[in-house]
Amino acid sequence: MTATLFGLGVGPGDPELLTLKAVRLIGDCPVIAYPAPDHGDSLARAIAAPHIPEGRQEIVIRTPMIAGQFPANDIYDRYSSEIATHLSAGRDVAVLCEGDPFLYGSFMYVFSRLADTFRVEVVPGVSSVGACAAAAGAPLVSRNQILSLIPATLDEHVLKNRIAGSEAVAVMKIGRHLGKVCRVLSDLKLNDHAVYVEHASMKNQKVSMIDTLGDIVAPYFSMILVRHPEAGVAE
Amino acid sequence: MTATLFGLGVGPGDPELLTLKAVRLIGDCPVIAYPAPDHGDSLARAIAAPHIPEGRQEIVIRTPMIAGQFPANDIYDRYSSEIATHLSAGRDVAVLCEGDPFLYGSFMYVFSRLADTFRVEVVPGVSSVGACAAAAGAPLVSRNQILSLIPATLDEHVLKNRIAGSEAVAVMKIGRHLGKVCRVLSDLKLNDHAVYVEHASMKNQKVSMIDTLGDIVAPYFSMILVRHPEAGVAE
Repeated sequence: MTATLFGLGVGPGDPELLTLKAVRLIGDCPVIAYPAPDHGDSLARAIAAPHIPEGRQEIVIRTPMIAGQFPANDIYDRYSSEIATHLSAGRDVAVLCEGDPFLYGSFMYVFSRLADTFRVEVVPGVSSVGACAAAAGAPLVSRNQILSLIPATLDEHVLKNRIAGSEAVAVMKIGRHLGKVCRVLSDLKLNDHAVYVEHASMKNQKVSMIDTLGDIVAPYFSMILVRHPEAGVAE
Repeated sequence: MTATLFGLGVGPGDPELLTLKAVRLIGDCPVIAYPAPDHGDSLARAIAAPHIPEGRQEIVIRTPMIAGQFPANDIYDRYSSEIATHLSAGRDVAVLCEGDPFLYGSFMYVFSRLADTFRVEVVPGVSSVGACAAAAGAPLVSRNQILSLIPATLDEHVLKNRIAGSEAVAVMKIGRHLGKVCRVLSDLKLNDHAVYVEHASMKNQKVSMIDTLGDIVAPYFSMILVRHPEAGVAE
């Protein structure tokens, strides 16, 4: 019996942005696992919900979201061990991941623990980067341009250097770092070339220029896209 | 009558990596346009083929692939004008794009010509970056890491500086630049940390370490993923 661990990208939020392959595997896998906050619902499960058969075995990977901290190792040790039990018994397990599993996905914590022991297949998903660009109606990069994906969690001087040095940037995981990122963009005089997007592709999607944002609380799933004015767009 | 121009990402090659939304719109739009080489078949159309209804009006955007050159403006002027005629007559047009339309997609040449005049909706797709990482079985970035997407078409010294300065890199559009990229990686002693992937997610997918590549001719749709050894992976 050779069970497979699937890392399934379920896309940025719109359930229609699931791939046909993800839909098929969600229907086929006897065990479905997904991340969820300490309290409350799982976004990944909500995206996949229409395709999860009744009575399917589910594993809710509850990870406390503590600002500025990554999830504790022992939490992923425990869930990975639970998943391994199913795999060892010959039951395929699909781990649902928002966006793309290998692009800042929490699936990596399970992958790093189980990939040496079990067969793993990763199904790529639509990433939030493409979804944010689509929401903003703004091309990210073309031709010879370089795009950098930069987590907003980095120190202010690192952020500033890296944003200054890239033609096009997606600043990821804005959340409580919004003030810092806006300061950096203002210092670099890039305000007019930056678009804020939250909940891309979802019903509560919001797109705004930086200067009109006001005093908002940005969710974790928000992003700022920056294009240096000299970068230009393919004509 | 308000027709819409859709930029539809059809993903990296595996027809199962189409999104439900792309499938729906391919079925709904009366006009389907897609890029194709000067001679030969369109990959974007091949991916979407099972979902294109019989007798649908199709526009084949034939763009000569001349090494080192971007498509001539007059070609996109002509096709955009043909697309505009349909939109003006109230017929929605779906332009199929490999991968994601706003990530190095040729859709941008149509977008830049028509976005000021017509309603445009971009449907993000699974990008080749996620597909290559999935093929390689290698996480791209996690936590606080920066990922740079760097076209192999850039000058050797630019490539070298940018690859040296990034924790994780996807070198895109390898094609005839393979030798140059391998030289750069060798200079930077990154050979052991670089994976070559061609035709990710397709039947002829190939994954190889740089040093065992030998004297191959890399297709345009190939990529090299690089992770600096100190970057580490989320445990």
